[in-house]
Amino acid sequence: MVKEDRLIIGESWLKDGLKKDKTLQIVYSIAPKGRFHLGFVVPLLKLKKLQSLKRVSMTIILADVDAFLDNEKCAWNVREARCDYYTMMLHQIFALLNLKDIKIIRSSSYQLEPKYTLELYQVASIVTRDEAALLEGVNLASLLSPLYFAIDHYHLDIDIVILGEDMRPYAEFAEKVSRHRGQRPRAQILLPVLPSISGRKMSASDPEFHLDLLDSPKQIKQKVARSFCEPGNLANNIAFELAKYFVLPLLDSELTIERSEENGGNVRVSSCAELERIIVSGCLHPADLKAAVVSEINRFCDPIREHFSSRLKLISAAFPNKKRGKK
Amino acid sequence: MVKEDRLIIGESWLKDGLKKDKTLQIVYSIAPKGRFHLGFVVPLLKLKKLQSLKRVSMTIILADVDAFLDNEKCAWNVREARCDYYTMMLHQIFALLNLKDIKIIRSSSYQLEPKYTLELYQVASIVTRDEAALLEGVNLASLLSPLYFAIDHYHLDIDIVILGEDMRPYAEFAEKVSRHRGQRPRAQILLPVLPSISGRKMSASDPEFHLDLLDSPKQIKQKVARSFCEPGNLANNIAFELAKYFVLPLLDSELTIERSEENGGNVRVSSCAELERIIVSGCLHPADLKAAVVSEINRFCDPIREHFSSRLKLISAAFPNKKRGKK
Repeated sequence: MVKEDRLIIGESWLKDGLKKDKTLQIVYSIAPKGRFHLGFVVPLLKLKKLQSLKRVSMTIILADVDAFLDNEKCAWNVREARCDYYTMMLHQIFALLNLKDIKIIRSSSYQLEPKYTLELYQVASIVTRDEAALLEGVNLASLLSPLYFAIDHYHLDIDIVILGEDMRPYAEFAEKVSRHRGQRPRAQILLPVLPSISGRKMSASDPEFHLDLLDSPKQIKQKVARSFCEPGNLANNIAFELAKYFVLPLLDSELTIERSEENGGNVRVSSCAELERIIVSGCLHPADLKAAVVSEINRFCDPIREHFSSRLKLISAAFPNKKRGKK
Repeated sequence: MVKEDRLIIGESWLKDGLKKDKTLQIVYSIAPKGRFHLGFVVPLLKLKKLQSLKRVSMTIILADVDAFLDNEKCAWNVREARCDYYTMMLHQIFALLNLKDIKIIRSSSYQLEPKYTLELYQVASIVTRDEAALLEGVNLASLLSPLYFAIDHYHLDIDIVILGEDMRPYAEFAEKVSRHRGQRPRAQILLPVLPSISGRKMSASDPEFHLDLLDSPKQIKQKVARSFCEPGNLANNIAFELAKYFVLPLLDSELTIERSEENGGNVRVSSCAELERIIVSGCLHPADLKAAVVSEINRFCDPIREHFSSRLKLISAAFPNKKRGKK
């Protein structure tokens, strides 16, 4: 279960923890900076796998203070609505993935308490400005965000932290802070990051290139159609990566790629290795792969779109600034 | 009363405030970073003058969070003892100066509250790293200290802030933050800063050169004896500055400079202008001026030394680190 993740910090601590007869606290943190996109679902698929462990307790943190500090990507006055929208989105996905017993908490519920604030200052006094500079922007608040990430690890008594590979500097920073504060180490599972249509990581602040779960079926189709996908080539093949990191883990069985008879008829793929072989062989047309990926993404998004279609007020409350909120 | 201070930010706001029939909140902030020295007394002499205004309410803030953030010059675990020592020192001086009804509060009593912390983050999001870099040191905490200073102005609803001229960048920063946060402006009275024996400003972190109120009479004498004081020259004349900013305001009447008959006999000085004239005329020997200054400083310190002589435990609790605490 853990073996297949190549990117782990603190594997030995994790093994120790698994041996002991204790409930492991697993946490995945989401900063509500922009629209909820497909990239957020990859760690949830991981949580689904981890739920088969005997003793786990899972929490998702809506890091609203953090999203505010990062150049006010979540303005303080839209915070409540933004968190409501993320919470509703998460509950929809929990239902679709059959994920149970996952707590959702907002970081503002504990990060403004005196005890936490004092800890923040204690950490601020041992961390240099350069070490804390993991976010873009010149404002002072952006230097505080990595401190939150680190302090949460021991403040919430977490055992396993799930995060994207792009967050590796945060993971290393957190490990260093934990040690310095005399805290036991935490295992951090770094997951591969879903690419956006432009090829970079799928990002909330990049609406033109990310796949919003509320995009229309047509928008999903158009976006994937624009993505790089060369016959016979796995490198930077976005349709392949969407299949590898989202579609195949989601299905947890066979993916059927529909093709006309003249193109060789339908293909069934039951593993990533199999899909790689077919692509490398050059006999799978990119259009067919893209169509299969689009079809599965839309199948996943359909009930979510349906649920939100009567809740548009929440969306406009969460994104009142048209410039930022509009697609 | 205010006219004689050349250094004021927001003089017009102060005049407006004086015209209105309201009680003016006056605050002087002290960060308990090191030993209590004579430099802290100059603003207290100013408070004494301001007490003659009809409606004033005075507060001294012991900025303990601030002293911690500034490179841990007040370690968190000695904070209580350090504040107790500063409080006792202040009460001694209040008694000597006949200062009444001055509240003493510790900044930790309100600066860790959620409302304040949130305000800190709001300000941090509009301030750049460069703007906040008013303190030495590379740690992140030192960037937060100026924010505290600024937020206190409106969080505590202060009207007049008393501070040393060396704090001018803080005063300007606070003014900018207040405006940006939509707060009414505050008057800031910048006072001349007492020099240390080395000529730079008297600083708590500079025990060899500052005049500790608990220095022995002999130490005070030796320190002043070492200071620059050239016959006929007012420039960088430390004994003259000690007389101008501490002794004359303290006495509020005549200073008697004792001299042997062969050196011209005793001189009485009733104003700074008079002292300047005598020095410039070249007929006052530096040794005589220094002796007079030392005598007045020791007269002031005697009862304070006496009070603390039976309370040495408090001093060692406030400065447990011998390297930092020892004279």
